[in-house]
Amino acid sequence: MTPRPVYFDCDTGIDDALALVYLMASPEITLAGIGTVSGNIDAARAAVNTLDLLALGGLDEVPVAVGAMDPLAGPFSGGVPHIHGHNGVGDVELPHTARGPEQESAAEMLVRLAHEHPGELDVIAIGPLTNLALALQLDPSIATLVRKVTVMGGAALVPGNVSVAGEANIWNDPEAAQIVVSAPWQVVLVPLDVTLENTFEEADRTALAASASPLNRALADILDLYFDFYVHEYGRRMCALHDPLAAAIAVGQITATRAPKVPVVVDDTQGPGRGQTLCDLRGQRGGARDVEGANVRVVLDTDQPLGPVLLQRLLDYAG
Amino acid sequence: MTPRPVYFDCDTGIDDALALVYLMASPEITLAGIGTVSGNIDAARAAVNTLDLLALGGLDEVPVAVGAMDPLAGPFSGGVPHIHGHNGVGDVELPHTARGPEQESAAEMLVRLAHEHPGELDVIAIGPLTNLALALQLDPSIATLVRKVTVMGGAALVPGNVSVAGEANIWNDPEAAQIVVSAPWQVVLVPLDVTLENTFEEADRTALAASASPLNRALADILDLYFDFYVHEYGRRMCALHDPLAAAIAVGQITATRAPKVPVVVDDTQGPGRGQTLCDLRGQRGGARDVEGANVRVVLDTDQPLGPVLLQRLLDYAG
Repeated sequence: MTPRPVYFDCDTGIDDALALVYLMASPEITLAGIGTVSGNIDAARAAVNTLDLLALGGLDEVPVAVGAMDPLAGPFSGGVPHIHGHNGVGDVELPHTARGPEQESAAEMLVRLAHEHPGELDVIAIGPLTNLALALQLDPSIATLVRKVTVMGGAALVPGNVSVAGEANIWNDPEAAQIVVSAPWQVVLVPLDVTLENTFEEADRTALAASASPLNRALADILDLYFDFYVHEYGRRMCALHDPLAAAIAVGQITATRAPKVPVVVDDTQGPGRGQTLCDLRGQRGGARDVEGANVRVVLDTDQPLGPVLLQRLLDYAG
Repeated sequence: MTPRPVYFDCDTGIDDALALVYLMASPEITLAGIGTVSGNIDAARAAVNTLDLLALGGLDEVPVAVGAMDPLAGPFSGGVPHIHGHNGVGDVELPHTARGPEQESAAEMLVRLAHEHPGELDVIAIGPLTNLALALQLDPSIATLVRKVTVMGGAALVPGNVSVAGEANIWNDPEAAQIVVSAPWQVVLVPLDVTLENTFEEADRTALAASASPLNRALADILDLYFDFYVHEYGRRMCALHDPLAAAIAVGQITATRAPKVPVVVDDTQGPGRGQTLCDLRGQRGGARDVEGANVRVVLDTDQPLGPVLLQRLLDYAG
């Protein structure tokens, strides 16, 4: 089977790094291009981190484009150094590659790839949705060219992680998110409802640290700070697999078992619910009934825990 | 033990009728006064229904005051005849009492009762919170005089019932709700999270219909239309016990087992989340940790199903 081409949009970022290496290790897909966006860290530094991780895995042919530095409606808030470190990768110094990013922007790259792979391109977006919104504004026809858009973002029936109801990726650029969920393409939203239930334990990190692969050992180092942060959430050193879960669902290793297509609106007011994904789950009561005309599938349950699947794939990866 | 004085605010309403008769039947409390508000039906009709039910139970000494016809920010939307009937009590014609409502408004009654029973008055509010907000505006000191305010309203981690995230009582007057949750009194919020889990079945209705009490037989008739409406929610004829659950928690027959005090903000923007209760449940993960300075207790679990408790109390009531 020919690997499916993927445009990957990220703000690398610790769990982004895990998701990136997972995608590098996945034979089901090929990374046609990667765009970066400001979120966990600024878009320029996210590109450096992405290029360094690609180089460490020997994937120097994957083009990386720097995307939007600022959200659509205002300046970038500056990232979250207490979670992802001052450099986005847990303050670990990766070996730096000499390779730089492309001349095109991330949005331009997405538009180009959508036209180069009509009906085939999978978009996996694990940061704020600024680049995707800009690409839709550059060329609305990409909505009909792209095969599917898988987004890590939002919170349907659980609290947010940045505000009462706001999840970081959506909250960082609600205007962009609203453009993305209302465009006429198929979106799979992977919210906190499921990402918080899929975790990596200290034993998983230790297994990566003991790997022969420099990439895996780098991931183990990078995860150290992230594990500290999650003590306040889970009560012990471990982490949620936010971004890797979206990647694994897009790749097909993890299957969404409860994921109704429902109307989704992003709150882009300046009110207390700003950045919230309002997923209309009325009347579902534990089931999954697609709502006529809805184009966003909200993932509420999956077939198996991602942790072991992710670890195995990383350990199997020769890169 | 002296029964605790209660000011009861309602928009009678089918489940309001159940809650009212439950309170009439409860020796733990005494109905010091009842105010009506527009919600399920307009405030004037709600007063007629309330007076008729009181009369049927022989409680003609309980004063009833007509409250706000319109929410704080605009005209009353007109009620929900497909749920509560055109008259609010399932289109059942109750025997009409000659007694009329008081001259004072519901807000004036609440202010008066708060001063007459300093530190002792329990407020149970099962409709839009317009009267409570007006009373706070009339006399902010009632916040320190009232013992506790138990509100049926909101949705914390479940969908709304009027909009994606909006529950009917709060959605009907978000401006009033925001005033009530931010006043310096103790609020117990009983949201859809728990009310939808407490139900009355057709067997319960049949038991009421077979009762010697005309009041119980009237309730059985009134519930008929309401049971029809809930087929779309539960898949069979039954109903949620929204208002009775708030009443039973206030009375003390049902105990909230998971009910953290957390910051609560009502979305009173004109955005897609209008009418939502944003309950800050971040970091709780199934637990119940009170947040310093919060004054709203959000009920997320209770000790036992209300259905059998409610039925027994109604059947035991000689009224």
